[in-house]
Amino acid sequence: MQDLYPTRGSTETIIDRADPVVHGTAAGAHALKEDEARYFEANGFIVFPGFFSDEEVAGFNRALEALQADNALMGREEYITEPGSDALRSIFSQHLFHPVFETLSRDRRILDKVEHILGSKAYIHHSRINIKPAYKGKSFPWHSDFETWHAEDGLPKCRNVTAWAMLTDNTQFNGPLYLIPGSHKKYVGCAGETPDKNYKESLKQQRYGVPSLQAIQALCEESELVAALGKAGTLVLHDGNVMHGSPDNISPNPRTNAFFVYNSVANRPEEPFAAKTRRAPFLCLNDYAPL
Amino acid sequence: MQDLYPTRGSTETIIDRADPVVHGTAAGAHALKEDEARYFEANGFIVFPGFFSDEEVAGFNRALEALQADNALMGREEYITEPGSDALRSIFSQHLFHPVFETLSRDRRILDKVEHILGSKAYIHHSRINIKPAYKGKSFPWHSDFETWHAEDGLPKCRNVTAWAMLTDNTQFNGPLYLIPGSHKKYVGCAGETPDKNYKESLKQQRYGVPSLQAIQALCEESELVAALGKAGTLVLHDGNVMHGSPDNISPNPRTNAFFVYNSVANRPEEPFAAKTRRAPFLCLNDYAPL
Repeated sequence: MQDLYPTRGSTETIIDRADPVVHGTAAGAHALKEDEARYFEANGFIVFPGFFSDEEVAGFNRALEALQADNALMGREEYITEPGSDALRSIFSQHLFHPVFETLSRDRRILDKVEHILGSKAYIHHSRINIKPAYKGKSFPWHSDFETWHAEDGLPKCRNVTAWAMLTDNTQFNGPLYLIPGSHKKYVGCAGETPDKNYKESLKQQRYGVPSLQAIQALCEESELVAALGKAGTLVLHDGNVMHGSPDNISPNPRTNAFFVYNSVANRPEEPFAAKTRRAPFLCLNDYAPL
Repeated sequence: MQDLYPTRGSTETIIDRADPVVHGTAAGAHALKEDEARYFEANGFIVFPGFFSDEEVAGFNRALEALQADNALMGREEYITEPGSDALRSIFSQHLFHPVFETLSRDRRILDKVEHILGSKAYIHHSRINIKPAYKGKSFPWHSDFETWHAEDGLPKCRNVTAWAMLTDNTQFNGPLYLIPGSHKKYVGCAGETPDKNYKESLKQQRYGVPSLQAIQALCEESELVAALGKAGTLVLHDGNVMHGSPDNISPNPRTNAFFVYNSVANRPEEPFAAKTRRAPFLCLNDYAPL
């Protein structure tokens, strides 16, 4: 299969995106409104404040607490700790471990928007809860999620979207997600061959698939950084290829978000495009049944 | 001499500040206005947007470039690199190395305010330029400057104020200073005996004199974090004891600020209150002649 998005070569490259951003049209009751679709197409993300009720958010947080307290799950590879500490940084596959997140993963209010963007049914490529602990939560460097999914999982096309719910307030102080609006229309092929079993280190601290300062500056030339801020209960949708990162959290408040990555059922993984071996299955789930 | 601010013991303690915040009254032409003095007293800091002209800022930056390019200075102990890289993190004593910063250190627009706050003439305890490089600039953990100056330099009273000029824009994205308004009225005695020659490590990454998460949460109980944001040319004054810190800078823009620490001539250093040895002289200058 042709590699539309070459990466992990000897030099960094920036090319135009080969795929549409919004692949479909509004169908379901909860599809994007016309101006929302236009905004998403132009910027690569959209924020919905107050999307979930306080009761729903409380339920998500109770479910997370249950996962955090589950000794049977602790120590599994889906549980990732912070670099240099035992604090939980991420829990993967929350939709497989807790019915509240399973239900959330199939929420029609989200799926209608996802199917609108993908122009097809979707399945879950992976899900994760990122817990950025108060005071000591570490940063995530700039990256395009899709660059990794393409290089290391073999997703051929950029036809995926991440929906994420804020489980705590995301403020300017607690390490919120920074996005480069419009960056989803460029593709940064990153320099550096993927090491074997890269993902094990990468989940704690990403080193490959990270664009240079010069690439970030180039993407920012026609754009200004935006922080995805909001109260707990905010929903964000972001294109798989939008460039994002987040600083550390020195604030006294944790920043916790639940992510669900939806891939088009027409975009199943091939062989990895720039890695010798596949990542662990929990990072690239293989249940392709449409939601 | 009685130790009004015990610290570096076996446990963390929070006590009330023993000293006034504003020691004097408005005298000079550029002293704080009444509402400014009230704001500083209550919050422990004050921000003056547009304090310096564009021409002045350009001059400061040219002077900094000259310091950065000065091979005779490179390698001196006043030049501090980032943890884990060779990038410059701080240059100390800029007012001794460049006439532009020497002039700035005696600027009456600043000194009148400093003398108002200190209720006396002032001398420079130390000066520094903090350069937080784009993309890779590391965070500074929460701390009270005065805690270190008391513990390791022997400043008996909290009668000092830092004036700093933004040499670049300080945005929410490039690792700005976070402050806890009102925290200057409490004093956190930090746990942990000061290691010998602590300052050498501390300038790259501070480990002692750092309050716990619990202390930061306590200080935030009646307060909300504030970020000191502004365009290049903004002036900030902050009390020596106000709690502050800053996150890393993953943005494509550097964040550079020039700090001048003014101590009251009536508050000369004694023996260190909680360290066996003094820090290097450039961190605690001994020219007590009033400015």
